[in-house]
Amino acid sequence: MVFSSSLLENAVNEFAKLPGIGKKTALRLVLHLIKQDAGEVTYFSDTIAKMREEIKFCSRCHNISDTQLCNICANHSRKQEMLCVVENIRDVIAIESTQQFNGIYHVLGGIISPLDGIGPEQLNIDSLVQRIHKENTREIIFALNPNIQGDTTVYYISKKLKGVSVKITTIARGIAFGGELEYADEMTLAKSISNRIPVEHYINDSN
Amino acid sequence: MVFSSSLLENAVNEFAKLPGIGKKTALRLVLHLIKQDAGEVTYFSDTIAKMREEIKFCSRCHNISDTQLCNICANHSRKQEMLCVVENIRDVIAIESTQQFNGIYHVLGGIISPLDGIGPEQLNIDSLVQRIHKENTREIIFALNPNIQGDTTVYYISKKLKGVSVKITTIARGIAFGGELEYADEMTLAKSISNRIPVEHYINDSN
Repeated sequence: MVFSSSLLENAVNEFAKLPGIGKKTALRLVLHLIKQDAGEVTYFSDTIAKMREEIKFCSRCHNISDTQLCNICANHSRKQEMLCVVENIRDVIAIESTQQFNGIYHVLGGIISPLDGIGPEQLNIDSLVQRIHKENTREIIFALNPNIQGDTTVYYISKKLKGVSVKITTIARGIAFGGELEYADEMTLAKSISNRIPVEHYINDSN
Repeated sequence: MVFSSSLLENAVNEFAKLPGIGKKTALRLVLHLIKQDAGEVTYFSDTIAKMREEIKFCSRCHNISDTQLCNICANHSRKQEMLCVVENIRDVIAIESTQQFNGIYHVLGGIISPLDGIGPEQLNIDSLVQRIHKENTREIIFALNPNIQGDTTVYYISKKLKGVSVKITTIARGIAFGGELEYADEMTLAKSISNRIPVEHYINDSN
């Protein structure tokens, strides 16, 4: 792409550094911004800069936060004894968006994946174990993606917590709501049969 | 989407205002920026803000520019008597990228489209006609998208220039009818410029 303006070119190059944004998309975004009021664009760039400068990671659960302790950890109306372990911040947002979980979180910052060179020491596992020992945790819910890496991580942490009197659960694996039974993979279908639940629980959950 | 950080939420909302960027994509982009060095993100936001504040439109051809006169118009090694008329800035970038055209441009800022309420008076057509009368233009090449709006615009401007001794051509129809100029590959676009045809042939061809 040949530009007659270096201001335009620099802005396009900056957008094109973002994941999934190619040069043509970047150009479309920049030309959109040129059409906006200068004030709106200043607000856009200020918001991004301020976010990056001021954002913190919660010292307790490693979630993204405006303050040293995130507002989920700091919220005393949430069940502090129920701890949900997730891979990353996107998972916290996904679970919070369901508005069904009233406990607190622990963000691992990844998942054990030897093929990608990610071992337990790169993740927030030590701080999780310390929390369990220190805090009054009664249940740990693993909400990790249902794959080999997720299962490995659940297994590794569960072993680390052997002897600690805490209930350890994982989110149910089964057929997604609206999914087709015949297209489910065998592993999922098998697990959903072996982990079947009494119909009265299921009906009560729905209400 | 429920966020535990308003810094994060504001940044996601700003990205989600961009065309074609939904909330989930916006979140992915913001989380990417959080992982980058603070200096890089500052550079990103400064580049965008500076671009919007300092960008100008060339007083002669309406192309995007760092200066009052764009560096295509100001370049005396380009053929100032050969004028390429395009719909928008993206088209200038597309043609410049072929490195096959050595004349100058005139950006209409749109195309005559009565259905969208865009008439000749909203476009840079008067300034085009003034340029032709004032400058030593010997050839006008219309490089508009080959569709009904493009044809209407060519026809309208050609009529306005009746009696002016200037050669009027349009780029060859190497591009499929209904196609978008900016997405054409460089080879097709380059050939369509070198094989440009006089408008009277072009109009006869259509009939």
